[in-house]
Amino acid sequence: MKKYQYTYCLFVIVLLFHSSCKGMYPQQKPAPKLILSQTSTGKMLEAMQTNELLNKSYKLITNSADIALAAGIEVPIPVNSGGGYTHEKHKRNYTAMYNAATVFAITGEAKYADFVKNMLLKYAELYPTLPLHPKHKENHPAGKLFWQGLNEAVWLFYSIQAYDLVKSAIATSEQQKIENDLFRNVAKFISVDSYETFNKIHNHGTWAVASVGMTGYVLGDKDLADRALLGSEKKGNTGFLKQLDELFSPDGYYSEGPYYQRYAILPFIVFAEAIEINQPELKIFEYRNKVLHKAVTTLLQLTNENGYFYPYNDAIKAKNYNSDELIFAVNIAFERYKDAELLPIVNAHGKVSLTNAGLQTAIAMENWKTKTYYRKSAFIADGKNGDQGGLALIRKPYANKNSILDIVFKFASQGMGHGHFDRLSFMYYDEGREVLQDYGAVRFHNIEAKGGGGYLKENNAFAKQSIAHNTIIVDQTSQYHANVKEGSAGNPELLYANFDNPDFQLAAATDKYAYQDVVLTRIMGVIELEKEQPMILDVCYLQSDNEHQYDLNYSYLGDFITTNFPYTKKELPKVLGTNYGYEYLYETASGTSTQPTAAFTFLNNDRFYTITTVNTSDIQLLFTEIGANDPKFNLRNDAGYIIRKNKQKNTVFASIIEPHGFVNTVNETVSNPNSAIEKLDILSDTSTAIAVSIKLKNSPEYYVLLAKTGNSENSISINGKKYSWQGSYRLIKP
Amino acid sequence: MKKYQYTYCLFVIVLLFHSSCKGMYPQQKPAPKLILSQTSTGKMLEAMQTNELLNKSYKLITNSADIALAAGIEVPIPVNSGGGYTHEKHKRNYTAMYNAATVFAITGEAKYADFVKNMLLKYAELYPTLPLHPKHKENHPAGKLFWQGLNEAVWLFYSIQAYDLVKSAIATSEQQKIENDLFRNVAKFISVDSYETFNKIHNHGTWAVASVGMTGYVLGDKDLADRALLGSEKKGNTGFLKQLDELFSPDGYYSEGPYYQRYAILPFIVFAEAIEINQPELKIFEYRNKVLHKAVTTLLQLTNENGYFYPYNDAIKAKNYNSDELIFAVNIAFERYKDAELLPIVNAHGKVSLTNAGLQTAIAMENWKTKTYYRKSAFIADGKNGDQGGLALIRKPYANKNSILDIVFKFASQGMGHGHFDRLSFMYYDEGREVLQDYGAVRFHNIEAKGGGGYLKENNAFAKQSIAHNTIIVDQTSQYHANVKEGSAGNPELLYANFDNPDFQLAAATDKYAYQDVVLTRIMGVIELEKEQPMILDVCYLQSDNEHQYDLNYSYLGDFITTNFPYTKKELPKVLGTNYGYEYLYETASGTSTQPTAAFTFLNNDRFYTITTVNTSDIQLLFTEIGANDPKFNLRNDAGYIIRKNKQKNTVFASIIEPHGFVNTVNETVSNPNSAIEKLDILSDTSTAIAVSIKLKNSPEYYVLLAKTGNSENSISINGKKYSWQGSYRLIKP
Repeated sequence: MKKYQYTYCLFVIVLLFHSSCKGMYPQQKPAPKLILSQTSTGKMLEAMQTNELLNKSYKLITNSADIALAAGIEVPIPVNSGGGYTHEKHKRNYTAMYNAATVFAITGEAKYADFVKNMLLKYAELYPTLPLHPKHKENHPAGKLFWQGLNEAVWLFYSIQAYDLVKSAIATSEQQKIENDLFRNVAKFISVDSYETFNKIHNHGTWAVASVGMTGYVLGDKDLADRALLGSEKKGNTGFLKQLDELFSPDGYYSEGPYYQRYAILPFIVFAEAIEINQPELKIFEYRNKVLHKAVTTLLQLTNENGYFYPYNDAIKAKNYNSDELIFAVNIAFERYKDAELLPIVNAHGKVSLTNAGLQTAIAMENWKTKTYYRKSAFIADGKNGDQGGLALIRKPYANKNSILDIVFKFASQGMGHGHFDRLSFMYYDEGREVLQDYGAVRFHNIEAKGGGGYLKENNAFAKQSIAHNTIIVDQTSQYHANVKEGSAGNPELLYANFDNPDFQLAAATDKYAYQDVVLTRIMGVIELEKEQPMILDVCYLQSDNEHQYDLNYSYLGDFITTNFPYTKKELPKVLGTNYGYEYLYETASGTSTQPTAAFTFLNNDRFYTITTVNTSDIQLLFTEIGANDPKFNLRNDAGYIIRKNKQKNTVFASIIEPHGFVNTVNETVSNPNSAIEKLDILSDTSTAIAVSIKLKNSPEYYVLLAKTGNSENSISINGKKYSWQGSYRLIKP
Repeated sequence: MKKYQYTYCLFVIVLLFHSSCKGMYPQQKPAPKLILSQTSTGKMLEAMQTNELLNKSYKLITNSADIALAAGIEVPIPVNSGGGYTHEKHKRNYTAMYNAATVFAITGEAKYADFVKNMLLKYAELYPTLPLHPKHKENHPAGKLFWQGLNEAVWLFYSIQAYDLVKSAIATSEQQKIENDLFRNVAKFISVDSYETFNKIHNHGTWAVASVGMTGYVLGDKDLADRALLGSEKKGNTGFLKQLDELFSPDGYYSEGPYYQRYAILPFIVFAEAIEINQPELKIFEYRNKVLHKAVTTLLQLTNENGYFYPYNDAIKAKNYNSDELIFAVNIAFERYKDAELLPIVNAHGKVSLTNAGLQTAIAMENWKTKTYYRKSAFIADGKNGDQGGLALIRKPYANKNSILDIVFKFASQGMGHGHFDRLSFMYYDEGREVLQDYGAVRFHNIEAKGGGGYLKENNAFAKQSIAHNTIIVDQTSQYHANVKEGSAGNPELLYANFDNPDFQLAAATDKYAYQDVVLTRIMGVIELEKEQPMILDVCYLQSDNEHQYDLNYSYLGDFITTNFPYTKKELPKVLGTNYGYEYLYETASGTSTQPTAAFTFLNNDRFYTITTVNTSDIQLLFTEIGANDPKFNLRNDAGYIIRKNKQKNTVFASIIEPHGFVNTVNETVSNPNSAIEKLDILSDTSTAIAVSIKLKNSPEYYVLLAKTGNSENSISINGKKYSWQGSYRLIKP
């Protein structure tokens, strides 16, 4: 165990703390100190009379609180892991306390405060008697109420807020019991006994410091608050401020990805709000060029048209921006930054948090005019200095439809332990539907029968592997040998991103480290050569001095319709490979092409999609299905399409992915079931540029000239004629 | 070619036709004669000012008409089969004419009438030159504009209605050209050249007689109209009235099933409406005890909670009650029967047909108060005399939710060529979601690349077979050897249906002919022993003097969660069988149970489902996946769970299918992931009754006593004690 000294503010933060070092916590101030103030609750009851959003939000929370009160109090001895009874019960308990406390704060009805008090007293009895949770795992931080420490911090996060709101209704002797036997013990467990997590620059650390920091404010314990802000040694090398410095890129991007950013945003924003109220002199919402604002807006941009977070890295696909975390985050971000672009999201939420911020947001919504949330094309930098690759979001609105073609091109950093080996992969959503997918995580969240509700074996063994993504796999080996340490050392690099022309948007990125002797580069564009026919241009090129097998994988969702090449479906599927996730795939069919292009058409919901790929030497086409070596049926049996090249050194894959036509099953009509591509070819390929020819039926041929480096001056020769251009691309009708 | 005599009304229908035999068609009456009258169009423009539904419907049709006018007229020489260009174009043409004619009828704007006239004149040029369609198939009635004759009749159905509405705006000489060169030719092709279809008691026949009959009214050709009503020989042994007699059961059930009933309802109801207007003395809407009313209401009851038609027999799953056919049918049924229970469906439609009936319906909706469409439990008899089995719909509303548990238990007749060998099968929908499925048809409707858009080989070979349904399969052989003729000779029989007690609803049926020496009987119930825990009781019993293998198949949709028995997933799947659809299944895993029950839990969307089956001697549990022997990827790779008993003579399968718990992925909470069944057993089984014991956790044990015959007096002994009851069941707490 380490010992801590109460050292005063260090040089680096002395300025920030200057005004906070005296009289921070006046004695016996009964009013709440966290994110719902007495002033706000006073206004809420009145505002609720006319403000529907507030009224609805209040009814929802009151209804939940009443159900909890009716069910009574049970604080069971911890037994189960994630999804099991005691696990879920302790989760329900903190939610119940938070809800009841909020209703008390607004109405002053004693029964709600009593419920919280009585439950906290039970916890105060239980907690000091608890050993580590019986289901805790080696090499994973343990809790006492829960199998993992993370849940313990979340418990404190809500419970301390509940206590803050009802403290004024609790007798001093009971306050002491609750504070000393319960909250100080939990805070000690999280900040001292779990020293390592508390000082980690990681979302688990954020939950820890936020819950402990808020406990410091409520208990008037400056030591707790300071350690939360500056780390256990109060040196600023760990703790909340350091986390703000390192966990977000300058664009507000969180390297673990949106699934975890969604989760982490709650302690970040709520603790920031508590800091702003208790230590306004820290100007936390201005910190690091308003990084908290960017964290919220970037997170929202990382949703598809239906509000679902892009499921890359370890992610559950069902998560959307209607989660409670986002309701708090969007409300607080609106309160602090007055960003009206957040209001369409509030409208989608259909409710607000019952906080100071929620009140402000609900009032603002009174004058809001219906507007669609705008998803724009953008490059989002990864890395604390913005120099570790990132993502290109390419969004193309459809004419005459309130809908978009949506590409997420990923060339970000490893993203720590939950990162996947998915460099230069992409996802494609069309009108909100997943068309080319990232598998996501292999996890049945909190379903105990499935490995205790945690990540399953197949998550590391399949879902993290490169073949579970729409990317290039060399020699059936995952990028960075699927080694997190290797992967964390090498980052992809943005070559260029150009979204100026809505009819020709593109981005290019390269990764030099994923494979020892191969450089991967990919150019992804969304181009509209002919009106209302947007399509995706996908050019991958690989450079190596040695011969390799290259697999370009497209994990498509939909019904197989047809191909322009002959294929043979196997009588019995065979297992595709032996390692790096290939052992989880069945090869269901294979073929080769003698045409200039290989084209595969599938149907996703009511639209057709054709992937047309230039047929260079010895191309092989494979169809796959997930499910081999999966003894517990943990995997979905989704399909895939692999374009394989054997024994190549330098090579180019050039494809068009084209949404076309419609099937109207109600009216039984079908339009444009066939691809519009008449010709697709690679005309020239030099070290600095590449030229592709595209011809659609009933349209002229286009030359698409693409820079490989993003240099401002580029040129390429086609049939002896030299073409020059500035910047990333040039489009010509020869 | 047969020759027809103009014989006057026969004895059987002389009464009906009595008043219609003189002066039916006054010369040169310019007003429309079909389902949109001058009186209605006169009122519509005004009503539209205040009636939103009408206004919206008008805008939709005007918009469609304007798009068609802008696109111009093209009447291509027929080349393609279903889904192909000329096929789709001729379909779009009749829709365009119908829409434009309707807009003309309402507005009087000449350009719309001109469009229809000019298109009809082009057809009048083309039609006389046409041979049979180049893509017509042997043994399938051919068309000229289309590969099959059915589409030709549909073309006439819409086109004659369009002509009816614009005839007044066309010069007499052009009228003559259109009538003589086009409509009389098409009507002759359909009624004379295609004699067999025209006189068929089948939906293809209905389209033929409806389109020809309406042509008779519009052209003032009594011969055409009479042949439509009474068949080619006007003897009443075929034709529309005979179809009304034979194609519906007394309950308005159509033996091909709802997918085809949806399709057939349009010519039935529209032609009936035309008859009512032109020959009101026939009182067609009173005919056969108002069978047309029952046809519409029964069809609507054959939808799940989301309005989708149950996909049994050959059926596309995407069909719902928002199809145009249902809009016309519901409007006309409302107009004629003033049935307010139809109005929630009109509300769901969000539009009306622009017809006399649509106008009346739209006006009625002005005073309609929001109400949910009520899906009730019901037995629906099949067979023209109601004696060929039928369906039991068992619906159980959930407490506190606007949602139902929905069972479709099918023991109907073969249903002609589109019928499946699915006796005593069932489908289970929960809160609108398909949980235990019928595969439906193997068809990519109108997608030319998939077998020309028609039914695929695997439709007969797999989807029609018994194993593609939730039923019992004996010796891996489909019921009736999958032979339509055999299947049409034998019908299942209802034993009883009892829906009086909402907490204990059940139905029982038997089939003595599906297998030569086995009698299949099934009792299906939805029971709620404990509050808010409804579950499905499924008892199948089989009687035979010889030993057989019995497979009870459950085609589940969802993620495999867990079992209470050990199983082994195969390294490579093996093909399950060699015939009767088994050759399309992979066996992915298998197991045996040593417990008193075998339980399998899966997750469908946000709910768990457990199938618990009493483990009698030598039970085998198999898991399957569809996809073997499917060289063109025509099948979905859906899963199945088979409970197999080998070498049995008489035996019982007793199962509980239980929805339980919830997964809230947004809030990350899970409730009741485990089955509540603690005990399930067969206590006694006699020739007349069966007793099952059910015990849930935290509840007493129940004895469920079930009659096998529906006799009013029943008794059974359990442990020496005799229990008696009246009717189908008795529930006791011993």
